[in-house]
Order: sequence, then C-alpha cells, then structure tokens
Amino acid sequence: MKNTQIKILEEIKLKNPIFIEALPGIGHVGKLAADYMIDELEATKFAELYSHHFPPQVFVDEDGLVENMVNEFYYLKSQGKDENDLLILVGNSQALSPEGQYQLSSEILDFVEQFGVKNMYTLGGLATGHPIEKPRVYGAATDIEIIETLRELDIEIRSADGGIVGASGLLLGLGKVRKMKGACLMGETPGYFIDAEAAEALLEKLASLLNIEINTDKLDERAEETRKMISKAQQMEQEIMNKAMGTSEDDLRYIG
Amino acid sequence: MKNTQIKILEEIKLKNPIFIEALPGIGHVGKLAADYMIDELEATKFAELYSHHFPPQVFVDEDGLVENMVNEFYYLKSQGKDENDLLILVGNSQALSPEGQYQLSSEILDFVEQFGVKNMYTLGGLATGHPIEKPRVYGAATDIEIIETLRELDIEIRSADGGIVGASGLLLGLGKVRKMKGACLMGETPGYFIDAEAAEALLEKLASLLNIEINTDKLDERAEETRKMISKAQQMEQEIMNKAMGTSEDDLRYIG
Amino acid sequence: MKNTQIKILEEIKLKNPIFIEALPGIGHVGKLAADYMIDELEATKFAELYSHHFPPQVFVDEDGLVENMVNEFYYLKSQGKDENDLLILVGNSQALSPEGQYQLSSEILDFVEQFGVKNMYTLGGLATGHPIEKPRVYGAATDIEIIETLRELDIEIRSADGGIVGASGLLLGLGKVRKMKGACLMGETPGYFIDAEAAEALLEKLASLLNIEINTDKLDERAEETRKMISKAQQMEQEIMNKAMGTSEDDLRYIG
Amino acid sequence: MKNTQIKILEEIKLKNPIFIEALPGIGHVGKLAADYMIDELEATKFAELYSHHFPPQVFVDEDGLVENMVNEFYYLKSQGKDENDLLILVGNSQALSPEGQYQLSSEILDFVEQFGVKNMYTLGGLATGHPIEKPRVYGAATDIEIIETLRELDIEIRSADGGIVGASGLLLGLGKVRKMKGACLMGETPGYFIDAEAAEALLEKLASLLNIEINTDKLDERAEETRKMISKAQQMEQEIMNKAMGTSEDDLRYIG
Repeated sequence: MKNTQIKILEEIKLKNPIFIEALPGIGHVGKLAADYMIDELEATKFAELYSHHFPPQVFVDEDGLVENMVNEFYYLKSQGKDENDLLILVGNSQALSPEGQYQLSSEILDFVEQFGVKNMYTLGGLATGHPIEKPRVYGAATDIEIIETLRELDIEIRSADGGIVGASGLLLGLGKVRKMKGACLMGETPGYFIDAEAAEALLEKLASLLNIEINTDKLDERAEETRKMISKAQQMEQEIMNKAMGTSEDDLRYIG
Repeated sequence: MKNTQIKILEEIKLKNPIFIEALPGIGHVGKLAADYMIDELEATKFAELYSHHFPPQVFVDEDGLVENMVNEFYYLKSQGKDENDLLILVGNSQALSPEGQYQLSSEILDFVEQFGVKNMYTLGGLATGHPIEKPRVYGAATDIEIIETLRELDIEIRSADGGIVGASGLLLGLGKVRKMKGACLMGETPGYFIDAEAAEALLEKLASLLNIEINTDKLDERAEETRKMISKAQQMEQEIMNKAMGTSEDDLRYIG
Repeated sequence: MKNTQIKILEEIKLKNPIFIEALPGIGHVGKLAADYMIDELEATKFAELYSHHFPPQVFVDEDGLVENMVNEFYYLKSQGKDENDLLILVGNSQALSPEGQYQLSSEILDFVEQFGVKNMYTLGGLATGHPIEKPRVYGAATDIEIIETLRELDIEIRSADGGIVGASGLLLGLGKVRKMKGACLMGETPGYFIDAEAAEALLEKLASLLNIEINTDKLDERAEETRKMISKAQQMEQEIMNKAMGTSEDDLRYIG
Repeated sequence: MKNTQIKILEEIKLKNPIFIEALPGIGHVGKLAADYMIDELEATKFAELYSHHFPPQVFVDEDGLVENMVNEFYYLKSQGKDENDLLILVGNSQALSPEGQYQLSSEILDFVEQFGVKNMYTLGGLATGHPIEKPRVYGAATDIEIIETLRELDIEIRSADGGIVGASGLLLGLGKVRKMKGACLMGETPGYFIDAEAAEALLEKLASLLNIEINTDKLDERAEETRKMISKAQQMEQEIMNKAMGTSEDDLRYIG
C-alpha cells in the first residue's frame, strides 16, 4: 500500500513551468496569496495528492460535509508577454512527521519534475509576534543570481538568523540537489491571524517576479472568507503540526 | 512481517451491508452504543484485527486474564423490513501514531470493501466539557443528500467549527475517495465519563437511519458494567492516544 | 538493512523449554531476579539481539568500555526432577517506540518458537509509589488454569485495574495469539529504587512455578552491585522509555 | 525511494584510514575541533550525505542562500611520519528520530567500511553545566587496550556514570559489532556556548593519538566565526534534537 497517492484529474503538458508552493503556515500568508491568485487568474486544478503523512483527521465544511486532508495541483497557461506556464501547489495540510515532510517533498518534486519544472517560488509568512505597520517581504534563495533579482525588487534578504521549517524550506533544499533553482518569499506578519495585508505584499512581489499582473482588490474580501472557513479545526491542525516539529509558537520564527 | 493481521473466524457473505464503526473515543459514546447494539441484536463476531499500530500493552480483565489490543468485526443479517445486512466494527483500541491511523483505516476499508460495503456510519461523541440536560446528536457526511436525511431526523449538522480526529473521521474521508458514502454521528457528552444517555440518543438516531428497532431499556445497566470494565488501563490508553494525536483534553473537541 | 539482528553464539536444542522474560522495568525487579538466577544457576548465553528500536545510545561501564543496547538469550538444561529446559531473555533495554515494541516482541517470539516454546513467564515490578513492608507478588495470565495455579501459590491475581505496558505484556498477548500460554509475575515495589526484596519475593514464586530451587542468599549483595552498575545512563534510559510510552511515573502503574 | 543518499564528489582510495566523526552536539566542541582541523590541514571533501532522517528544514546563510541539512565526508592523506590516512565526517545535523539515528549510523559505517576503516575516534563535548577553569578531555572506548592508550595521554576515563547518546555513541557501539575499534573523546564544557577552549583541549589529545601536529593558534578566531554562523536556526535544531531524544538540557549529560 503506497503512503502517498496522486490522483490525476486532467492530463496536461506545460511550457517552461514555474512551480509555486503555498501550503498552510504562519498567518496563512502564502496560502491566502496562492488561493487568491488561483481564483483571480482562473487556474485549473489537474491533480490531487492524498497522504498517510497528513494529520489523521478530516475537516467539516460549513455545510457539514467532510473534507479530506489534501494537497492540490493547479496549472495556468502563460498569459500576455509572459513565457512561463505556472504549476501551483496549495492545500489544507502539510505532512505531520519530520520524515513525512521529507518523503512528501520528494514525491512532490518527482511529480512536478515530470512537467519540466526548473524554477520555483515557495510562499510563506515570517512571524514577528507583534503588529506591523507596512509588511515587508523577505526572501532566501538557492543561488546568488536570484538573490540579486530579489534585491532589485526591494525584497529583504534574510541573513543567517533563522531556518525555514517545513515544505517551503525542504522543496527549495531538495530541489537544489536536483539542480532546480528557486526562492522562498515570506510576507512579514504578526503570525496570529489570517493576514490579508501580508498576502497582498507577497502577491505584488510574486507578480513582479513572474512578470504578470494580479488585481488584488478583492484580496481583503477573500481574507474575510478565509477567516470564516479556517475553522477551529485548522487551528488545531496548526497546533498539531507545531508540536510535531518539536516547536511551539513561542520559539518558532517560520513555518512555510 | 505484516504490521496488521486480520484473523477470519467465519467465512461470510453479506447483502448490501452497511458498515458501522465505533472504536473507543470521547465519553465512549460510540463504543457503548455499538457494544449494546451487538448484544441486543445478537450480532456475530466473524473476524479479529491485531495491529502493531495499537498501544504496546495488554489489558487485564476482572479474572486476571490478559486481553490483547484488538478490533472486532461483527455481522448482523437483515431483520424485518430492512434490506441491509450490517457489518459492525468495535474494539478496545485505535492506532496510536498518526501514520498508523491512516494505515489501519485503509486496511479496514480494504477488508469491508470485499463484502460490498458502499455506505457507512461512524459513531462517536462530541465533548462539550460541561453537563448537558438532554444530549443532542450531531452529524457530518460525505454528500449533501445524506446531510438532508440527517436533518429530517433532527440530527444537528456540524458546521465548520471543528474536525473529526481519528478513525471516525478517516474512515469517512478515505471511504469518500473510494466512492463510499457515509456519515459520522456524534452524541453530545460532557466527555469525562461513560455516557449512557448520549449513547441512547445516538442509538435512537442510528436505529431510525437503519430502519430497525433497538430496545434501549438495558443500556443504562450496560453503561454501569462498562464503567466497571473500563479500568484505569483504558483511561491510561485514552491519555496515551490523546498525547499521540498531539492534543490534550483541553483543546480536543472530538475523537471518534 | 534489517532493523533487528539476532547473533547466534551457540547452536542449541532445548527440551520442552519454558521461556522467561525479564527486561528492564519498574524497580528493575524482573531484571534483578533473572540476572541473579542466571548467575546462580549458571545459565549459558547463546544469542544476542541488537535492534534499531532500542534507544540511540551506548552505556559506559566502570572500566570506560562502551556497551551496546542489547537483549541476551540464555539457556539452562533441566535440573533435578524438573523436566523443562529454560530459555531466559534479559538485557539492558526495551524498544523505544510503540511500533518498535510490537516489532521486537514479534521477532523475539519468532525466535523462541523455533526452540519449541509453548509456555512463558514474564517478570516485572508493580509500582506502589510508597514503602512496602513485605512485598507481595501479583500475577495475570493467558488462561484460567494458570490463574488457578498462581492462586495456589498465594500469588495475588490482578483484577481489572490496570494494563501491562511493554514487553512483559506484549509477549504474553502476542504469544496468546500463537497459542502460547503464560503468566506475568510482578513483584510489588515502591518503584523508585533497585528493589532486592521484591526480586527475592518474585524469585521464590518463580522457583515454585518452575519446580526448581534457587538459593537467594546472595541476592541482596547482587542488588547492591546492580545499584552501582545501573548508572545514571540507565535511569535516563528509563525516563526516555517512559516518555516514549506517553506516560510519566505519576500515571504509570506498570512497565514490565 | 531511498531515505538516505550519499553523493560521491571524488572517487578515492585510502591507506589504513582512521575514521573521525564530529557531528553537532553539546557546546559544538567536536564539530568546532573537526571543522578547524579540516581547514588547518586542508582536508578534501569527497562525499555528501542527505537524509530524510534529518530535521525537516533548511538553514539560511549570511548571504540569504539556503543550505540543506547535510553530513560531509573529508579525507586527508597521511602526513610526515604518520602511516594512516584520515576520513573525517562533519555536518550541520544529526538524525532526528531514535530509529533514524540507528539507520544513519549503520549507513555511515557501511560507507566508511568500504575504505578499509578499522579504527575510529568520535568527538564530542561533556556538559558540566557550570564554568570550567581548564577543560579536561574524557574518553570511553571499545576495548581495554585503547583505554590504556587514553590513560597514557592523560585522558580521563569515564566510569559508569552516564551513556553516550547520538552518533558518537552509536558509531562506536555499532562499529564494535563489526569488529571496528575506537574511542569517544569528550571535551569538558559548560555546554551552553560555542566552546573554543574545550575544542582546543580535545584537538591536542586527538593530535597526540593520531601522531600528527595541528597548530591551534587560529582556533579562537574560528570559534568566533562559528558563533556567528551558528544561527538561531541551529540552536532551534539542537532543541528539536534534544526533544526528539526525549531529553532536555537539564537531564542531558552528553550528546556527541
């Protein structure tokens, strides 16, 4: 019995795809940005990933329907002057155990590699623990040229004062071993609520990097919806994950 | 060496069986209801499941006999006007680790699928943490038609304020991926004692759904017995499981 | 790579062997009794078991030599009027993880089954948490005839007020599924020191059950040695195991 | 999918190599000593090890570049009158789970055994928890002849007052089963900062044992750099590892 299953909904081919990951994490900054982007640009879901490494539970939605722990792959064919298709990973969960994290990140890379992915952006939040006037976006990358590109877009470079825990870190790191390049973008956030402003800041930088346009007018509205949908169950989920990583919110700077 | 073994006690065939799961959880509501139903309707045990994913211990019964951690499958041939046979899963334990939970739920579904199961009810308790005058029964389901049926029977629909942790959630969720349909029924309970009233409320709703009759007169007596039999060991068990799930009784709304 | 290796030191055959297990646990009662018995009756070591399920450490002995986590198998050919050979398992460690506990107990049963084992005694301590004037010996068993035998020897029968966690419980329980019979004998002990008196009480009952004689005169001396040898490292070990089982000394009645 | 991968950077042959291990641990004493030795003697990296057993994260260096959890193998051809080549293992991480620790130590031994390793030194720190005037070096070994050699060099022999947790212990212990010989050298350190003095003491004893010369003049400077580079992330890492081992800094005497 395989611990992880990917269910293909549509057979697709992609042209020079850029991989974007945004699984649940601090302030749901990455998830909110990517979910909005998928809606706004009308990306198409083409695969679902189920795994024994997710927390052993289901969510219940507002209609009383059970919802599996799942990761979802979307694609977006290149638009306007941009030459790259996009392959976007979102979901309601990350792997729970440390070894599950590695296993799942490897299987995700195996999957996206088939579509010719050579570049990626992983999205997350950087928790400050205190209110922020105007959220900045921080970045870390697999090579120095990308660092330069981030700098040109006024993205703050993270220096050696912390690691990146979870999928956003591992996908970059394991990708690097496979000669994939990429960066992790982190929206600065207090970390204790669904943060639309951090997601907006993040989305603006991502749009510049991808050379596309994303209208962020409805992001605030979306954040409100997300606040409602992200039930106590998902908060519980976050707590479970934090414990699994052996960290508490107190000593945790970043989960992406 | 296989981590899970199913020992067949009797080879059987079932007609349109409905699968009912009731493993230990909050207030032992589901377990109490199902154990009573098995006794009252004289269901027959036909298989036992042993697993390395259970807690590493044995119980000692009132005669000093050791009792393995075990899950047990019972069947009940259709009665009166009802057209469905029943396949009931009870036991003294759930898998301890998150990955064990997924593994075991998958193996249980593999097993019951062989008998033609397409529908299921998973039974549990919903902890309120405070005394309840008249326990309500809550429900969540895999599709909207079942939700409607639950509503017609005055079962409260859970909205997006919590998940369902453990076997009651996973069996529904993993079943849904296999095109099985079902609902989780949760008897409202303070959660800190063996709750016969919640089990009675649950059993009445279940009987309506299954279109059978169950005399609940002796349920209270049974609850008393269960209180005695469920020793400190099983309380210890519950605590171990709570810890394994990364939750404490404080932040835990539901384990089924 | 196999997670568990059994290194055979001597090829042996045994006549109707009775299997005796005494791995580290509460008050080291079982271990102390079995180690003494091995010395006193001059049993012979014939196999060593190494496992990835043990704690990830080595001990350092009084000469500065490193000592692996290991389980050891001894045999003793039948003496005097007794008809059974003995196969004794001792060691400095138990499996750390719950699934490791099941795995290792299964592999131990696979191994001893080759020698024709059909009966076993597992030895441990029963922690009271307070001083004891004259330690009693408690028992639990796989069938009612053995319970009767225990009663005849004034062994107290444990009723349904607790489970047996760890190897002493699992070997009995998993053995029962394989049609092996047996009992767990537990010497009553405060639980927070190396308890020679509990071990002596245990050994006397075991000798009666095995129909052999064991001179316990030097047991006290041996306990003193054990106290010295059982270093802080082994106490640390015990704490790690307690945590792994999700229990603390406060809520733990028995580990055998 | 393999959980551990060793990436060969250069195919080499070694003459009677001595294996030296120095992964992160208490006070980073072993790591600091070995990193310095590699720089000072200009050892060459020839292999990298990546594993799913490492913590699920990446570090970010001072330039914003992501850095995988990795172990690295260096070699040093024999110098001057010494007849042994050296094979040195350093890295930024140890396996997180107890079973991962065993798995990884076994795979490391499989790898170094190919080069003919028969002897090893594992390096670490011994935490005192209080300031030390002149750090001593402690040792434990696989056989009594090595203990004698350690004594001749005024290395204190650890007696039975503690174990050796982690790679430094397991490599020795599992090596012993394979007939490899070796010792663990531990520099005495308060344990709560990067300790150049303990590393210097350790390096002097190691140089004597290896019969080579190492100029330790720049070690203090190196310690300062290490202090800067060992970011909060690596402290977090240490905390995660401590928790994984089921120990806290309070009850932990040694991790090597």
